[in-house]
Amino acid sequence: SLAGAVARWREEGRVAVWLHVPIGQSRLAAVAAAQGFAFHHAEQDASTLTLWLGEGPSRLPGYATHQLGVAGAVLNECTGEVLVVQDRNKSINMWKFPGGLSNPGEDIGDTAVREVFEETGIKSEFKSILSIRQQHKHPGAFGKSDMYIICRLEPSSFTISFCQQECLRCEWMDLEELARTKHATPITSNVAKLLLYGYQEGFDKIDITMREFPAVYTGLFYKLFHRELPESYRNMT
Amino acid sequence: SLAGAVARWREEGRVAVWLHVPIGQSRLAAVAAAQGFAFHHAEQDASTLTLWLGEGPSRLPGYATHQLGVAGAVLNECTGEVLVVQDRNKSINMWKFPGGLSNPGEDIGDTAVREVFEETGIKSEFKSILSIRQQHKHPGAFGKSDMYIICRLEPSSFTISFCQQECLRCEWMDLEELARTKHATPITSNVAKLLLYGYQEGFDKIDITMREFPAVYTGLFYKLFHRELPESYRNMT
Repeated sequence: SLAGAVARWREEGRVAVWLHVPIGQSRLAAVAAAQGFAFHHAEQDASTLTLWLGEGPSRLPGYATHQLGVAGAVLNECTGEVLVVQDRNKSINMWKFPGGLSNPGEDIGDTAVREVFEETGIKSEFKSILSIRQQHKHPGAFGKSDMYIICRLEPSSFTISFCQQECLRCEWMDLEELARTKHATPITSNVAKLLLYGYQEGFDKIDITMREFPAVYTGLFYKLFHRELPESYRNMT
Repeated sequence: SLAGAVARWREEGRVAVWLHVPIGQSRLAAVAAAQGFAFHHAEQDASTLTLWLGEGPSRLPGYATHQLGVAGAVLNECTGEVLVVQDRNKSINMWKFPGGLSNPGEDIGDTAVREVFEETGIKSEFKSILSIRQQHKHPGAFGKSDMYIICRLEPSSFTISFCQQECLRCEWMDLEELARTKHATPITSNVAKLLLYGYQEGFDKIDITMREFPAVYTGLFYKLFHRELPESYRNMT
């Protein structure tokens, strides 16, 4: 029986038990719950339960705590105009940058480019990260936290063809007008001012640039975002 | 029966069904799975299943995709030394900044300060974000993505009392030595060079500063991280 097994594991000095349950065998989750197991996480066709047997409160790692939203501030440097949208399903119509949730496994810059294209039909290229916000107990995140990142993008197409399901309006708006208007969300307003500063005085004033590095063990690459470092520091050994 | 209910919901044109199942009634998850339901997520003593009835692939939002790790680069500006640790349970001993996973609902800066204190006994204060990395299919994240943020912290205590369970070594190390050593992880090495640049030429060269804003609907505050904006831009209306 599971009760007997748990008693034995406890005697053996084990600190934790992990239980993987296929969805079709879910009655076993109820059986395990009677022995003190609780859900760690579940996805698609399986759940994972844990039981802490060690001393004190559980030291087991939790499951993913954040969703990641990414928006794109697409600036046409020739005209000084920036791409903005209004959501279809909001009571108050505020201008904001197009964006949406990252898919599992998707890079920040790729989410920005994809979401901008899906919402507005505009093609663009990732330039930098401009701003990061963390918000907790997010209503659209099933009680989890939300990270929201706004990227600076450069457009490679200019004809708007916006998604009627998601957007009420979509425009190229003068950046200075966006920075001054009251009809923008506070984050949009702040980032518009930041973008205007960069546009007028140099993007090096506002960019959080990206560099790619090889990961130590996996042979894969990762992207590190930080302020630009002069050559002399970058190459010091 | 559930099958009958699903048929009716389909006829009524509903696009999705959400099912909340207490862990003790988990056999219902198996019954629902037979009708095409799958786990959306589960935590503690309940699971949530979904069934997409709309056209095309599911447009339901996914569950949290990221865990958040935060490390603290604690620089003693009087001595030019920075706080570094070596993990106890690693085969190769590389210097790195103390840090760990964010607890649910915890702010970035608070995680950095807490983890530094837990690992090293050093008290510190949040100054800025220095670097952000996103890595996918993270081995320690149950296949989910990992966001890893390094913060600049200022120490308010200096006597090390490090956690023997987690750390093999903990030292105040000369920042320039850390920037040059081969015995540091690549991210640590990059951030050490960045920190040295800021220490020598001004932290405004490296900081991603934080400002707090009221959230529109909730009355709560959120923190926005970006490059510092001059007063003239900040106050424009």
